[in-house]
Amino acid sequence: MRPDSANRLRARRLGLQSQHEAIALVHTDCPVCRSEGVSAHSRVRLTHGETSIIATLYQISSDWLSRDSIGLSESAWAGLGLADGGEVHVTHAPPIASLTHVRHRIFDGGLSEIQVQSIVADIVNGAYSDIHLAAFVTAISARPLSKNEVVFLTRAMIETGERTQWSDSLVADKHCVGGLPGNRTTPIVVAIVAETGLLIPKTSSRAITSPAGTADTMEVMTRVNLDREEMWRVVEETNGCFIWGDGAGFSPADTDIIRIERALNFDSPGVMIASVLSKKIAAGSTHVVIDIPVGPTAKIRTTAEAEMLSQLFLKVAAAFSLELRLEITDGSQPVGRGMGPALEARDVLAVLRNDENAPADLREKSLQLAGAILELAGKAASGRGQALAQDILTGGRAWQRFLMICKAQGGFLEPPSARHQRPVCAPRTGRIGSIDNRKLARAAKLAGAPDDKAAGLDLKVRLGDSVRQGDPLFVLHTETIGELTYVLDYVEANPDIIEITH
Amino acid sequence: MRPDSANRLRARRLGLQSQHEAIALVHTDCPVCRSEGVSAHSRVRLTHGETSIIATLYQISSDWLSRDSIGLSESAWAGLGLADGGEVHVTHAPPIASLTHVRHRIFDGGLSEIQVQSIVADIVNGAYSDIHLAAFVTAISARPLSKNEVVFLTRAMIETGERTQWSDSLVADKHCVGGLPGNRTTPIVVAIVAETGLLIPKTSSRAITSPAGTADTMEVMTRVNLDREEMWRVVEETNGCFIWGDGAGFSPADTDIIRIERALNFDSPGVMIASVLSKKIAAGSTHVVIDIPVGPTAKIRTTAEAEMLSQLFLKVAAAFSLELRLEITDGSQPVGRGMGPALEARDVLAVLRNDENAPADLREKSLQLAGAILELAGKAASGRGQALAQDILTGGRAWQRFLMICKAQGGFLEPPSARHQRPVCAPRTGRIGSIDNRKLARAAKLAGAPDDKAAGLDLKVRLGDSVRQGDPLFVLHTETIGELTYVLDYVEANPDIIEITH
Repeated sequence: MRPDSANRLRARRLGLQSQHEAIALVHTDCPVCRSEGVSAHSRVRLTHGETSIIATLYQISSDWLSRDSIGLSESAWAGLGLADGGEVHVTHAPPIASLTHVRHRIFDGGLSEIQVQSIVADIVNGAYSDIHLAAFVTAISARPLSKNEVVFLTRAMIETGERTQWSDSLVADKHCVGGLPGNRTTPIVVAIVAETGLLIPKTSSRAITSPAGTADTMEVMTRVNLDREEMWRVVEETNGCFIWGDGAGFSPADTDIIRIERALNFDSPGVMIASVLSKKIAAGSTHVVIDIPVGPTAKIRTTAEAEMLSQLFLKVAAAFSLELRLEITDGSQPVGRGMGPALEARDVLAVLRNDENAPADLREKSLQLAGAILELAGKAASGRGQALAQDILTGGRAWQRFLMICKAQGGFLEPPSARHQRPVCAPRTGRIGSIDNRKLARAAKLAGAPDDKAAGLDLKVRLGDSVRQGDPLFVLHTETIGELTYVLDYVEANPDIIEITH
Repeated sequence: MRPDSANRLRARRLGLQSQHEAIALVHTDCPVCRSEGVSAHSRVRLTHGETSIIATLYQISSDWLSRDSIGLSESAWAGLGLADGGEVHVTHAPPIASLTHVRHRIFDGGLSEIQVQSIVADIVNGAYSDIHLAAFVTAISARPLSKNEVVFLTRAMIETGERTQWSDSLVADKHCVGGLPGNRTTPIVVAIVAETGLLIPKTSSRAITSPAGTADTMEVMTRVNLDREEMWRVVEETNGCFIWGDGAGFSPADTDIIRIERALNFDSPGVMIASVLSKKIAAGSTHVVIDIPVGPTAKIRTTAEAEMLSQLFLKVAAAFSLELRLEITDGSQPVGRGMGPALEARDVLAVLRNDENAPADLREKSLQLAGAILELAGKAASGRGQALAQDILTGGRAWQRFLMICKAQGGFLEPPSARHQRPVCAPRTGRIGSIDNRKLARAAKLAGAPDDKAAGLDLKVRLGDSVRQGDPLFVLHTETIGELTYVLDYVEANPDIIEITH
């Protein structure tokens, strides 16, 4: 398509927040639509100067928009690098050739490396609509990715993004496959490992299906939206960092895939492995410990499932010469007490500061994982990692290192508190028989986490505890009354979130 | 959630064309979002009086929208039955319980009847976003529906929509599974069958992946958007009708499913069978003939595949006591010459009017299918249906019946012609060796069909024809220069659309 003068429209910034999806609005009678024949809800190519993006077009028949202008979402505005009054050419979006491969994957069979590359390239270019992305994500979940396909996907996700290399040839990292509320070990582990002199440039994601990801939690205490240059400086200065992976430009396809998985409230093993390993490898890591919590209401429910996942992780890592150690941990109940960014940050700080009331389980698990990394990277002999980690934590050196890293990232802030707090109490006296991780996580999300940083819930009991009728089981934290009403409705409708036995 | 006064916003009609998807826009600083904590791109419940719908919410930070108003798409406006200045309450959308079943279908296994019912009910209620719909459609394509699931889906699609019953206990219908461009036999078949006194209340769909559906083609000659009362009157008066199925309210879930399949450019056997049979049964049909064209570039590529599809069709039909006859036909090349609504209508009229230049293949196939219906419904003895059909056509009675039906639907119009016509010529002398149905259909769509009624292409050759260099192979018809340029680019890039052998 050659853009010509008839296809020029005046750009108007709508301030429309549409996440990554580029959206354009034009008047039903605008001359471009008449000459090009584009219809409502079609995908179009927008060009400004040398820059082109693909957007979803909506038409408006009211006078909200003049006939010679095009309204753009923030993502489209930024993608085109526009200034006010700039000119935009509108043409048909080119056919998306790689959708043939998505259809092949749905109906027929496996994908070649070239096919996976072209799908990932089109995702990164913004050619896929949400419908296309949802079909791809669902297809590779319903018919799971083969080991080779995971390797292809991992490599394609690395190659379509930025990469970092470090001066040191040994670079450590950790990751938790998630599914367990709380469990915010990363900030503690990074502080301990960095203090030993090992590089640990930790990139984290925001929540996919949980009330908070590590990036959400760290964001209440410091800036996490650093670019690669800033990240490099922080790590060179402090050995560690806590940054949001997307901001660094590693594995950009992953951002879109995660957005769709979040809307669908699932993720699948192959996609998860590609997502995790592509970001680790792009960030230059060489030695990685993966935490796999197992429990009846955790993401991974059985040891057999954890073993299968571990095997696939190891096989894919081997294709990239990545040293991996998998730690299968107890996922029968949350780790720590808070769920939601600020409440989890509070637990992390209590452990780092050696508070006597710090959650013991969070402390223990952090030491276990830090110890595993120290052993994997040769900083401690086999079986001696955890003791070394404990020395660093109890001596206050982990806390000092944590502050040093936060300061290098832009400063340290204490976590905020939510406006509304409401306890949910035991309906009768007895013993805590079970805790449903999924429903607790759902309640914390309905309370507003992770979008509201201070929202979530604070768990007051653990499995086996004795409670009396009226004792608080957990406290809901919300920023608005609307959300408090909403989450209370959910809690009332689900009395089995925490079960009390005799 | 209880709507309270703080959640009221003034409705503003944007004239936003978003097809079925309900969209709402609010200002980032609007008090409702502050009190409810709803964020950009979330799903919300909108209430006006006693009516509620689910919509996708976008936020706008510019002054395009005042802080106390909510902008609504046409579908949201109509769904809420709003008048200007009406008040809308905004609350969180309730969690969509049936998405659990979609996830179960992706990762685990089959669905029960109750699970399918709750998914279809949520689709009809508008609770599913495009992402949810795409995941459901992909899941049941990648892991095909079992026979029982197709029965459940068919029944759920019938029960969530309107139904019609007729005075006559025997009601005929026909359907083509598609995939073959042109092939517009339906208007001819309906005219012939109705003329024998059989009821044939034909509901048709618009194009899913083709340049035109029967409803698109009929729309250039008469009104097809009739409601059930009008349909009833037309059929009682004339024995037949040609209406757009969605307008009649049969199987409303199908509308959303087809919209997603169109964006993904696929459909799968189980979904297709549920889609077809739910509409036939809801429309009160008892005897149905299904045309299954088979050819290397048709939707169904092999006889084996056609046989499998036929078996599934028959099994599902049996669960509803529907009499079905399947006609496996030649799908090696297009039927008729035109592709696109108006060009196909022109072929249909030529056959009905017994024009000497009418496409012989379209005529023959229409007689075959009409004959099959007459035999299935007992109007002709076995082997005698086609002769009876031919008498009715050549005697001019089919054409008179066609006009009678069109007049009852609101009048008859001759099809329009497109503004731009451009022949694509044979690059060398030889014989027509192959015709790629899919690429021809794609070219007709790029020319603007079916949205532009007159757009499409007109095929000038058939398999085995001799051509000289420079002879036209087909003529492109477009309404705009933009589309002409676009489709010419595609044709140049795909010289194998029609292959010429020595």
